[in-house]
Amino acid sequence: MKLSTTQENLSKALNIVCRVAGSKTTLPILANIMLKTVKNRLQISATNLEVAITQFIGGKIDSNGSITVPARLMSDFVSSLPKDTINMELEKNKLHIKTKQYQSTINGIAADDFPSIPKLQNKNTIKIPISDLKKALQQVIFTASNDDSRPVLTGVYFSSQNGRLFITATDSYRLAEKQIIKIQENLSCIVPVSSLQHLLRILSEDIEENEVNISYDQAQILFTLQDIELVSRLIDGQYPDYQRLIPSKSDVNITLNREDFINITKVASLFAKESAGSITISVSEEDQEVSITSVASQVGENISRAEAKIKGSGEVTLNSRYLLEALNAINDDKVTFRFSGKISPCVLTPADSKNSDYLHIIMPLKS
Amino acid sequence: MKLSTTQENLSKALNIVCRVAGSKTTLPILANIMLKTVKNRLQISATNLEVAITQFIGGKIDSNGSITVPARLMSDFVSSLPKDTINMELEKNKLHIKTKQYQSTINGIAADDFPSIPKLQNKNTIKIPISDLKKALQQVIFTASNDDSRPVLTGVYFSSQNGRLFITATDSYRLAEKQIIKIQENLSCIVPVSSLQHLLRILSEDIEENEVNISYDQAQILFTLQDIELVSRLIDGQYPDYQRLIPSKSDVNITLNREDFINITKVASLFAKESAGSITISVSEEDQEVSITSVASQVGENISRAEAKIKGSGEVTLNSRYLLEALNAINDDKVTFRFSGKISPCVLTPADSKNSDYLHIIMPLKS
Repeated sequence: MKLSTTQENLSKALNIVCRVAGSKTTLPILANIMLKTVKNRLQISATNLEVAITQFIGGKIDSNGSITVPARLMSDFVSSLPKDTINMELEKNKLHIKTKQYQSTINGIAADDFPSIPKLQNKNTIKIPISDLKKALQQVIFTASNDDSRPVLTGVYFSSQNGRLFITATDSYRLAEKQIIKIQENLSCIVPVSSLQHLLRILSEDIEENEVNISYDQAQILFTLQDIELVSRLIDGQYPDYQRLIPSKSDVNITLNREDFINITKVASLFAKESAGSITISVSEEDQEVSITSVASQVGENISRAEAKIKGSGEVTLNSRYLLEALNAINDDKVTFRFSGKISPCVLTPADSKNSDYLHIIMPLKS
Repeated sequence: MKLSTTQENLSKALNIVCRVAGSKTTLPILANIMLKTVKNRLQISATNLEVAITQFIGGKIDSNGSITVPARLMSDFVSSLPKDTINMELEKNKLHIKTKQYQSTINGIAADDFPSIPKLQNKNTIKIPISDLKKALQQVIFTASNDDSRPVLTGVYFSSQNGRLFITATDSYRLAEKQIIKIQENLSCIVPVSSLQHLLRILSEDIEENEVNISYDQAQILFTLQDIELVSRLIDGQYPDYQRLIPSKSDVNITLNREDFINITKVASLFAKESAGSITISVSEEDQEVSITSVASQVGENISRAEAKIKGSGEVTLNSRYLLEALNAINDDKVTFRFSGKISPCVLTPADSKNSDYLHIIMPLKS
């Protein structure tokens, strides 16, 4: 293998690919990236056996070949080099890297031992605008569970319902659901959160294209954008039939400024540390006011108030962190918050019906 | 105690004072701040028994009094409140805090139990421009030791030498010395690094004044700027006579661009992780070139090169982190690096004689 490429392209690709490579893995080769010449391009791949990322970059290929080298060292090294041409030449398992000022040799492991990057079979394909997918993932991903005892809840559910694509996550204490584009395909995939966090990082890069291509089969899902491919295994299992948990109506309905709601919740949460974040929201139709009470028997207590449009009266106890995270995920100046008594699920949505594609549910705490 | 003040002034003062208060202290009251009315102003103080910070702010004082309350809660609470008038009223040991939207009660501990803030005796005073003191501390503080077995090295040495103020720190492997203003007073104080880190944080705040007043006696040092006072204990003991360790001349003298030197050191350090950062600098008068070699037997090896003005030839082995930190502390485009053989101290200074007030020494590693 002998080739040359620019520092900028190589460094950008290494930055995208390398973070999948593990540092604490039992299989040493998984801490490496694979470099391989493929049809006048250089393929750079890393995998942790759950998710694999590949990027192709251009270069001047003098002779073909492949090798794997330590991901972190290669990435740190190339990113420290000046913007210049980088020459690489493989001699046995030693990769020589040269620029005008720098001469390095990195000891590699033969690419034959590198796990093969999975290929999809009988695949279906859909296209989603990058900005829609990014926003949707940011709005739902944090509600997924990190408890491995119910694997399906550690994933995000991509499903087609009534001709629309729904993206949903829940840890059984709270749930977030976002509707995005119309689709014709039949889709039902559970994608691991860790894979989607890698995807989100890529979506946040400076990408020229506007759309991401999604292909899937029974076992895998592939996201393609520009010269980057991310392929992840799917989580096997049946996602809970969550739709029947969403109350269609509630006894108490409140509309208020999102900023106000965030501020009074934040202040209340400071006094809720002893009680693991438990705060009580009281609503009075007569006063058209929401108040949040929190009591820390040792430290003190607090009541925070905000004006709101209110129908119905009552109170409910919630985890303040769940409420804050839900409010931060809603992209509207005003939010609607509705509940029925102390045990039914609370529902948060943007107040503007134009944004009605997002819905967030929080289960109350016993008070 | 009954008073009102603005959220902005109170929040800013709490932010400055509170970080001294401990969260993991064995004496619970040290996690509190003291609030006390003093001549129509509110005094806010915190101490960890080594350093104490006090700020005075204006307010409308209706009745006098004092109390201590949990520092972190008070600071987080006030910083979350809207920019508005804050009313405080003490009832037994309960501090009631009210704004239009918020009503809180924080349980306090009587101020009688709070440690008294030390007063200086027979004090001397000097004035230093804030920017000079800040720069000097940033350039030397990181070379102090964090090994308590030699307490004097865990401090920064303020001393008068030949009518100038010298600020020095060393951990015995490296040393940094900065000369600042002329002074007439006789000064010899060792100030704990942790106190100076609190001071640096205050010096970085948006302060209207240009000068800081420094007063000192046998046991304490007081830094005063605007309405803020920081008083620290001094470290007892004799600072080493470090001046005799500084070589006046060296066999090899190099002048090169600071950026180039940083870059080649950074790249070399990537290959020096196995050898605990050890890199070898080789200098050739004939080639007018500096090269840095690092070898990681498992991973690979690197040679990095840069042009330089050179007198003499030789090589020396250094810790790459020490070298990088020294280069980052020098504020000049070009640096002078000089050494004599493999065991004498290496000396780094700004190349421009106008900046000759800073000097950095690194002891070589055995190679």
